[in-house]
Amino acid sequence: MKKTSKPARGTRDILPAQAELRAHALLKISEAFQLFGFQRIETPTIENIQNLRSGDGGENETLVFQILKRGDKLNLNEVNEPGDLVDLGLRYDLTLPLARMVANNRAELPPVFRSLQIGPVWRAERPQKGRFREFVQCDADVIGDASNVAEIELIMATSTALCSLGLRSFKVRINDRRLLGALGKGSNFSESEVPSLLIALDKLDKIGAEGVTNELIGKGFPEDQVKSLLTKIELISNATSVDEQLSHFHGIAEDAVIERLRSTLQSVRDQIHDDSFSIEFDPTLVRGMGYYTGQIFEIGYKDYPFSIAGGGRYDGMISSFGARSEPACGFSIGFERIVTVLEDEGVTGESNSEKILILYETEDQLFKNVSEFRQKGKITTVARKGRNFKNQLEQYKKLGFSHFGLMREG
Amino acid sequence: MKKTSKPARGTRDILPAQAELRAHALLKISEAFQLFGFQRIETPTIENIQNLRSGDGGENETLVFQILKRGDKLNLNEVNEPGDLVDLGLRYDLTLPLARMVANNRAELPPVFRSLQIGPVWRAERPQKGRFREFVQCDADVIGDASNVAEIELIMATSTALCSLGLRSFKVRINDRRLLGALGKGSNFSESEVPSLLIALDKLDKIGAEGVTNELIGKGFPEDQVKSLLTKIELISNATSVDEQLSHFHGIAEDAVIERLRSTLQSVRDQIHDDSFSIEFDPTLVRGMGYYTGQIFEIGYKDYPFSIAGGGRYDGMISSFGARSEPACGFSIGFERIVTVLEDEGVTGESNSEKILILYETEDQLFKNVSEFRQKGKITTVARKGRNFKNQLEQYKKLGFSHFGLMREG
Repeated sequence: MKKTSKPARGTRDILPAQAELRAHALLKISEAFQLFGFQRIETPTIENIQNLRSGDGGENETLVFQILKRGDKLNLNEVNEPGDLVDLGLRYDLTLPLARMVANNRAELPPVFRSLQIGPVWRAERPQKGRFREFVQCDADVIGDASNVAEIELIMATSTALCSLGLRSFKVRINDRRLLGALGKGSNFSESEVPSLLIALDKLDKIGAEGVTNELIGKGFPEDQVKSLLTKIELISNATSVDEQLSHFHGIAEDAVIERLRSTLQSVRDQIHDDSFSIEFDPTLVRGMGYYTGQIFEIGYKDYPFSIAGGGRYDGMISSFGARSEPACGFSIGFERIVTVLEDEGVTGESNSEKILILYETEDQLFKNVSEFRQKGKITTVARKGRNFKNQLEQYKKLGFSHFGLMREG
Repeated sequence: MKKTSKPARGTRDILPAQAELRAHALLKISEAFQLFGFQRIETPTIENIQNLRSGDGGENETLVFQILKRGDKLNLNEVNEPGDLVDLGLRYDLTLPLARMVANNRAELPPVFRSLQIGPVWRAERPQKGRFREFVQCDADVIGDASNVAEIELIMATSTALCSLGLRSFKVRINDRRLLGALGKGSNFSESEVPSLLIALDKLDKIGAEGVTNELIGKGFPEDQVKSLLTKIELISNATSVDEQLSHFHGIAEDAVIERLRSTLQSVRDQIHDDSFSIEFDPTLVRGMGYYTGQIFEIGYKDYPFSIAGGGRYDGMISSFGARSEPACGFSIGFERIVTVLEDEGVTGESNSEKILILYETEDQLFKNVSEFRQKGKITTVARKGRNFKNQLEQYKKLGFSHFGLMREG
């Protein structure tokens, strides 16, 4: 087959203007988390395939790019199913590699470890506008802290990172998986029915209370239980204060769970001194992943139909890699969505320093002249003066070059 | 199969100390190239498989991690060879994706485009000490400049990047593929025999002149021609000046090629004002890749048995993607090797700012206190005071925390 200049389906080439914005945003995010004591780690992009088929990833596990076995390990005569052909896969998120990495390196890390991980992940989804099969995630995680200091610090650090990018008035929503479970049990659903409830409730924004009611009844749940659940959710949503909202959980949820949510909310609010962002209890917040075990959170911005960050507590995952059980809580920034928002808002990654273009007709003294600019820290490039001078300048202006010099012959 | 906490074979988890050094080095390298007007781009890590089988990559094409077809595209009943099972692969370098990207986006880029690309590449090599199957490359390339301004700027920018990492007294070696070809023809080898000569000459450092002589004679080349070639190479290597070295090429190489090499050497030397680095003509420098068409270069450091950067001119590649023919020249920094060198030299990535750890017995006022430090830009983390206080401090010292505070109960 002939070579093609097109990128692989669902991937894209990133040109300088966007690449510069991306580098700028990553640096700002990284600096904000570092201020909160988070430290960079890197994990491999490829994982042993059994880790990517373990059930931790839910639907994402069906979207793994799988890597063909190599050499003698690949025997086409002993293949019963496609799974026999592969031994590795590209990671679909950063949480699973982090959990594996902590299990593998526990003794080298302090009891409470604050991790910052930035890197690409892959999902073989049907490509759509604005969604790619390869994309960058930024994950901050606190490992080893069972208290809600982890949640509070994660919410504050993530919000600080978003503020450092110039975003304002974003909204943090918070809930606890156990409160959602309690609501279900309060309406006489059994423990084992809760996951089905969560899947339906996750669609509240999209299909509304009536849609969710119909879906649950359609799945065979008793109409009176479903209506009781949805009525309670409406009551809580319409309550005018956090205390009133939480009062609906007394008797059906553990006091410690209710108290912990109140504490996280209050502590974050105490640290907000302006209108940069807000935090609210949202009893309908579900978050897709099955591994969450406690408080969950999401950040929305303006009218964008997606969240720009999301996370929660997942206390079970690290021990599933054969290590000691370990509390864990994380916040993941949807980096590609952030880039979309920043582009919409006209933010550019260009550094403040002047960028200089030296056009030359002769190379005599060229390098002597440009090295003087560079020694002063000025970004300087050179190009032979072309026939279409004006057009040439325009192209460099697009690349952010603002100052021009000409070195003439003779 | 059970989940495993081990990273995939040939890959590794990177812990905070090294991750911080890596981030520091990448930032410094990036800033140095930006000073020279290079601009970041990003290309996808996965490429259509036919691009990775085109012959551009030489031996690297046998080391591609191949990705299994998905859905209906995978039909186990129609498989004749393993290649039928895959449609994508992980890139083995950054040069091929760059050439594809330029061919695909030519109109959006200025006539002379200076690209900086940093990212992971994969090769399914047998893992060995210090060599990994997934590793980072930093590539700077000048597209569209046929003159040796490209080579000169690339050598200066790369050297500036290495200096900015604190490396000194490194050696740039330069040659021209066409001079190597001329040497072969000067000893009566035919044009088509030159590639075999290059493969043998590439081993001069390792097996010496005698080894190369034996290898070539063993391959059936006439003894007198082989000896004539090796004698000439020895004469050139022992010459005491560049002029004397180059004089051996008069009559066998084109004058323009000789003159161009002299010009690159001279221009770089004119820009070196201290002993930070040096540049030398090395007539035995080959560089492995088949795609080089002109000047080639490599940087060595101290007694390390590997080069820390290498590159050259490859004028043919972009047009092979169906675009207009385009001159191109690049320099690739072996990032993993740089990290090895920096670790050996005791360089750390730690920022100069103090890092503060607040140990707390109570959460009262905790966030108020730490936010004051953070507002002053001080990196601050918190941890509940443990039973083994001394041990706890030691672990945070290892993470670079230098200042400690304690918040006591009551």
